[in-house]
Amino acid sequence: MTESTEVQPSSTGAESAPLRVAIIGHAFMGVAHAHAWRTAPRFFPMARAPQVTVLVGRDEVRTRAAADRLEIDQIETDWRRAVERDDVDVIDICTPGDTHAEIALAALAAGKHVLCEKPLANSVAEAEAMTAAAEKAATEGVRSFCGFSYRRTPALALAKRFVDEGRLGEIRHVRAQYLQDWLSDADAPLNWRLDREKAGSGALGDIGAHSVDAAQWVSGQLIDGVSAMMHTFVDSRPLAGTAEGLGGSAAAGAERGPVTVDDAAAFTARFSGGAIGVFEATRFALGRRNANRLEINGSAGSVAFDFEQMNQLEYFDGRDDQAAQGFRTIQVTDAVHPYTDHWWPVGHGLGYGDLFVHQVADVVAALETDTAPRPDFGEALQVQRVLHAVESSAAESSRYTTVARTAQA
Amino acid sequence: MTESTEVQPSSTGAESAPLRVAIIGHAFMGVAHAHAWRTAPRFFPMARAPQVTVLVGRDEVRTRAAADRLEIDQIETDWRRAVERDDVDVIDICTPGDTHAEIALAALAAGKHVLCEKPLANSVAEAEAMTAAAEKAATEGVRSFCGFSYRRTPALALAKRFVDEGRLGEIRHVRAQYLQDWLSDADAPLNWRLDREKAGSGALGDIGAHSVDAAQWVSGQLIDGVSAMMHTFVDSRPLAGTAEGLGGSAAAGAERGPVTVDDAAAFTARFSGGAIGVFEATRFALGRRNANRLEINGSAGSVAFDFEQMNQLEYFDGRDDQAAQGFRTIQVTDAVHPYTDHWWPVGHGLGYGDLFVHQVADVVAALETDTAPRPDFGEALQVQRVLHAVESSAAESSRYTTVARTAQA
Amino acid sequence: MTESTEVQPSSTGAESAPLRVAIIGHAFMGVAHAHAWRTAPRFFPMARAPQVTVLVGRDEVRTRAAADRLEIDQIETDWRRAVERDDVDVIDICTPGDTHAEIALAALAAGKHVLCEKPLANSVAEAEAMTAAAEKAATEGVRSFCGFSYRRTPALALAKRFVDEGRLGEIRHVRAQYLQDWLSDADAPLNWRLDREKAGSGALGDIGAHSVDAAQWVSGQLIDGVSAMMHTFVDSRPLAGTAEGLGGSAAAGAERGPVTVDDAAAFTARFSGGAIGVFEATRFALGRRNANRLEINGSAGSVAFDFEQMNQLEYFDGRDDQAAQGFRTIQVTDAVHPYTDHWWPVGHGLGYGDLFVHQVADVVAALETDTAPRPDFGEALQVQRVLHAVESSAAESSRYTTVARTAQA
Amino acid sequence: MTESTEVQPSSTGAESAPLRVAIIGHAFMGVAHAHAWRTAPRFFPMARAPQVTVLVGRDEVRTRAAADRLEIDQIETDWRRAVERDDVDVIDICTPGDTHAEIALAALAAGKHVLCEKPLANSVAEAEAMTAAAEKAATEGVRSFCGFSYRRTPALALAKRFVDEGRLGEIRHVRAQYLQDWLSDADAPLNWRLDREKAGSGALGDIGAHSVDAAQWVSGQLIDGVSAMMHTFVDSRPLAGTAEGLGGSAAAGAERGPVTVDDAAAFTARFSGGAIGVFEATRFALGRRNANRLEINGSAGSVAFDFEQMNQLEYFDGRDDQAAQGFRTIQVTDAVHPYTDHWWPVGHGLGYGDLFVHQVADVVAALETDTAPRPDFGEALQVQRVLHAVESSAAESSRYTTVARTAQA
Repeated sequence: MTESTEVQPSSTGAESAPLRVAIIGHAFMGVAHAHAWRTAPRFFPMARAPQVTVLVGRDEVRTRAAADRLEIDQIETDWRRAVERDDVDVIDICTPGDTHAEIALAALAAGKHVLCEKPLANSVAEAEAMTAAAEKAATEGVRSFCGFSYRRTPALALAKRFVDEGRLGEIRHVRAQYLQDWLSDADAPLNWRLDREKAGSGALGDIGAHSVDAAQWVSGQLIDGVSAMMHTFVDSRPLAGTAEGLGGSAAAGAERGPVTVDDAAAFTARFSGGAIGVFEATRFALGRRNANRLEINGSAGSVAFDFEQMNQLEYFDGRDDQAAQGFRTIQVTDAVHPYTDHWWPVGHGLGYGDLFVHQVADVVAALETDTAPRPDFGEALQVQRVLHAVESSAAESSRYTTVARTAQA
Repeated sequence: MTESTEVQPSSTGAESAPLRVAIIGHAFMGVAHAHAWRTAPRFFPMARAPQVTVLVGRDEVRTRAAADRLEIDQIETDWRRAVERDDVDVIDICTPGDTHAEIALAALAAGKHVLCEKPLANSVAEAEAMTAAAEKAATEGVRSFCGFSYRRTPALALAKRFVDEGRLGEIRHVRAQYLQDWLSDADAPLNWRLDREKAGSGALGDIGAHSVDAAQWVSGQLIDGVSAMMHTFVDSRPLAGTAEGLGGSAAAGAERGPVTVDDAAAFTARFSGGAIGVFEATRFALGRRNANRLEINGSAGSVAFDFEQMNQLEYFDGRDDQAAQGFRTIQVTDAVHPYTDHWWPVGHGLGYGDLFVHQVADVVAALETDTAPRPDFGEALQVQRVLHAVESSAAESSRYTTVARTAQA
Repeated sequence: MTESTEVQPSSTGAESAPLRVAIIGHAFMGVAHAHAWRTAPRFFPMARAPQVTVLVGRDEVRTRAAADRLEIDQIETDWRRAVERDDVDVIDICTPGDTHAEIALAALAAGKHVLCEKPLANSVAEAEAMTAAAEKAATEGVRSFCGFSYRRTPALALAKRFVDEGRLGEIRHVRAQYLQDWLSDADAPLNWRLDREKAGSGALGDIGAHSVDAAQWVSGQLIDGVSAMMHTFVDSRPLAGTAEGLGGSAAAGAERGPVTVDDAAAFTARFSGGAIGVFEATRFALGRRNANRLEINGSAGSVAFDFEQMNQLEYFDGRDDQAAQGFRTIQVTDAVHPYTDHWWPVGHGLGYGDLFVHQVADVVAALETDTAPRPDFGEALQVQRVLHAVESSAAESSRYTTVARTAQA
Repeated sequence: MTESTEVQPSSTGAESAPLRVAIIGHAFMGVAHAHAWRTAPRFFPMARAPQVTVLVGRDEVRTRAAADRLEIDQIETDWRRAVERDDVDVIDICTPGDTHAEIALAALAAGKHVLCEKPLANSVAEAEAMTAAAEKAATEGVRSFCGFSYRRTPALALAKRFVDEGRLGEIRHVRAQYLQDWLSDADAPLNWRLDREKAGSGALGDIGAHSVDAAQWVSGQLIDGVSAMMHTFVDSRPLAGTAEGLGGSAAAGAERGPVTVDDAAAFTARFSGGAIGVFEATRFALGRRNANRLEINGSAGSVAFDFEQMNQLEYFDGRDDQAAQGFRTIQVTDAVHPYTDHWWPVGHGLGYGDLFVHQVADVVAALETDTAPRPDFGEALQVQRVLHAVESSAAESSRYTTVARTAQA
């Protein structure tokens, strides 16, 4: 296809100083973020085009190789050095959750804006400290964001818009499932995500956290309390490297180590606005690769989303005439939809990587206009408190457990 | 389409005496059953063709009109009379749940086979008494069945077959939703289903019971315990007839009466074989007309079903080669599928009413071959005990509650 | 489920004489029709309840067995005898197409109403003679119908209603596919449907005819001309019975006979109202069991249907606000939808067999109210002329061929 | 999500000279290509990382603005200057079709590799000249590619792999639809795509060309001949700018100009390997935003694709046991699928823009390994010849028209 339509200019002037970013971590998330920082200004108008100036990783050789591939000039092997640099405006934290608090606190203390991957931290206490620091920093114009990237899905953003417009009426039901299957094989090898020390929790924190954030954000209601069940189906797994020929499934006879996190978590919930919720997160739903689903039923309408069809939103309008009512499959790729006017013609969908481009666009826009970051650390802390209530309830025979709203110390 | 293929003969001889049936109740379920008793012998081979000889209803005029329409010769206005008749072999109970126990106990005492609509009763105590009576009657060749008609859906029966064949491996997840929306309008009028005295419970007993039965039957595991939440969104509704112009929504100003049952119920569950379950039943899922859904994930395969596409089963086979794995949409209309070889060519699906034909075929086959009825009263009692545990848990802050396996008296 | 809602009375009085029917043929279609004649009066109000008094088949033993199973008292082995009987009001023709003309002409001459399975005949000449006879008979109150049963699908009937209401605006596209796969195996045995003498044509007449009728009926436009291609993929097949162990696939070495009809037909079309059409009919679309699909795009809306989800209609309303546009999946099971108010509560779908019940209801209603039958023989003749134009075009290098509107003799 | 898994290094050394690219055109396609040239080396291993050195556009101000946004240093306002530059290795043609031939011929003559957007040209004669020049240039190591970007969709590439592996057996049916709706409004304004001089043809060349290329590429068969129908529903449209307030729909009273291309094209086809095909391309299928669909049925399996769910492939395996047969919905996001191992974890889908990244990766890989480009100009010429045969057939009453295989001059 060739096209003579002019794409609208985005950059309004080269006079603005670039927004200089240091990325901590260069694995899956580091790559996604690096790609997004560079891509965003080509599609979204920005006065201060971002520029990744430093990549941080512990291993110098591997960090250098990653930086070369990602076209980042400089590297550091200690994140403290990046935080101290004068040529860095934003610290982008893409490391595992057990390191988030320390890095974020140092960065905020140094006056750097922070974008921190989710989960905000591995404990509520850490998240509370981070939030307090973020609120203090905000008084001096230093901003902090948490990377719940699914909020940047056009279809979910449209769902939220519909709720905000009142199209759903009074919300009654929230139904969230996050189904994966990569641990379904009982001989898939152990990794850090199955270690409570590093990962905090299992399916709950890794993917359930996304559901909690999306459910609260789209519905506009907070979770008041939960009743939960958690389960580990496979309590030991082969250690990687203890036997030859490890692939998806480990060779027989490999030494095994303990799984110390949940394989699956499920809970019912009550919301602040009167809705009730059902949540499920698992890595054992064989055949469901990444089914991040959210359905909300209100008195006037409903929405339903499944990330496996990420460019679609199902929408039911109860005001349609009765003979013609039905869930509409909206291709959320139209110029009037969130984010999509910056990309391709209608019907030409986006991908997972593009969500991070939207996140960068939103972060930069918030910084440029000095508006509140969404989600900020406080919102991420609230998610953390829900996860904590889930774990508490599961530990106490599923008893209904209230989500704390203030620091418990 | 015209076709010269011979349909296989079903009736093997007119020498057998017909199986004479009395139907108690002539509303929705009575009509469905009457239709099924008459239709079944035309499609399923039966030595003893059933014949509905009596229809029972309290109002003589209306019962007579219904009997005429259904081509049933005789009527009774007192069910006791039907139970006493010599020309009745089977008592088919299609009345509301608060009457089931009395009728069934009398019928069994009179030596009549009993087919009783679900739920078996409105209380565990009643269900226990019925089960005890059924077991006693069974020693004299008198059989009793409970009408969980969804078991007769070819797609669900295929799912069960797949589980029994080991195709799913070890079962980890059971995920059941039964979503309707007919109470979504807060001004929909009050009816008997919203009255705890008559209906026993609301969404839980009406539709959640189907999910519990299907989940246990397909998975081959019983529910050991539950943690539950129940909720009533709209606690009063217009009384029918108190204002003019009642339609789907009552006129403003109509007098309102209390809703005494749950509008929605949700619970997590642990199963006897190690699976965990998530259940939700509601009449407030706007846009979901009759979404009776069941998904089961095992270590080797998964199945997923939604009654809104009742002729399909989704099936994932984890043994498929990796590049070609995906949920298969099976059109469950093939000659090798349950029930469907008795009907139309492949691809010509069945409807809701046909499930009752299958139920009749199964009941008659069990009687003819003197094999155990499925489900018998004992299975239905176990469902009742699950519902009771759900209500108990919901009443005690969702605390995990064990399902009784024996009489508690 | 038990229900106390009263089902509306249908029969208005036993004083009317029954409508006595003779069914010619007792294979697939004969069974479907017999079932429908008996079932219809239980769900649809009728003053003259139909009654099948005679079943006709050439083989006495097999016909008797079928009559017993179908609860029909009397049989005949010569259709002429049925036509002559005084106790028959309707002749229902369920035999292969090569016999339709002779039977229908005799029946009309004898003053019997006629319901004739599609295709109306195997040639345009026969169809013209039948139509002329039907028009003549109509002047004396004798009615004739052609059994395009898919018109009785609630979802397709709703599509037509939407077109009639102007919801689609000016119609531009008609897109019809009828995909089956039962001949996909090159060793599936020969049968009468593959014999041009008996069947007239192959996929074209058997299933393409349904598409032509549905497309014209729903769109409200007639096909003016076509450009066609026909193809036979497998030109010989094993004769049934020439080798042992015939199942889906014949044993190696079986004797083969010629296939003399099309395996697949495809054509483009121009419609009388300015729409253009694309049609495809095949029995070689492996995996498509009975995908009878129709999509219509207009200037204001679109509808799409697939029989594999027969209880659903996809509907796009171009007047929806832009952000919320999308195809609606309508569960066509609501009280406001065609036919469905006579059956079950919303969301409890119908099956293939129920279409014939609707057909009976429509035939009886037309007879009772003395309104024009739909479709009458004239409409079926027009379909036949389209099929003829398709064959002519395919025989002449796909040259665009006009559909005749008047007799060509 | 945070992840410690190492992403594999891609760049093997900085010693290789970069591959310098000039992009001609900076509208929709120019932006997509520029994005892709820069993104590809971050995800796909490349010895010679590409670098866009020059952007070409006629208007200096607008070209400069686009270059700034796309981070391209230099611009030219005459494509001839770009062709002459020594610091350019690849000419990437993203202008309308009427300019392709002149630019490509000059570039090849200057020894530059050429990537030319589809359609290759607006006439067969031009395409033949381009192909001849490309073949001559190839003898000196100069390569030429045509940008049929849909080939880079992982799901379509998987479909082709399945065909190549023999999973489909003998191919019988090819069914291709490309349905859009952006001209459905009769008052949508005129643009260059509706002008035969500039665009060559309408729906046929713009989107039908994609279907033809994909159908031939996936099936492995060429189209031998076609029988076609073309239609223009709306033959005049408002001139942009002749009335105020132009949006999607022009104001009443605007001056109108003629539409000189087809709004829709449909044709049947015969393939070189015995398959038959049905094609339809339209911009009037209201509600279908970008439904680029392809289904292929073989004797052993089938595949079906719809770009509206671009990360999925439907696959039917006729060798599955009969009770478990059904179309599999494959999430084509697995490490074993084409392209996807370079991106995200399984289940995290790609978007439209990513296809161009794959295209760059394939082009660079072909140049690095000196293997034949796919598709080359010869393949694109064959597509052009099919389009020409379609137009010829449509002009001659749809008569079956053979596709030329050699130059006709």
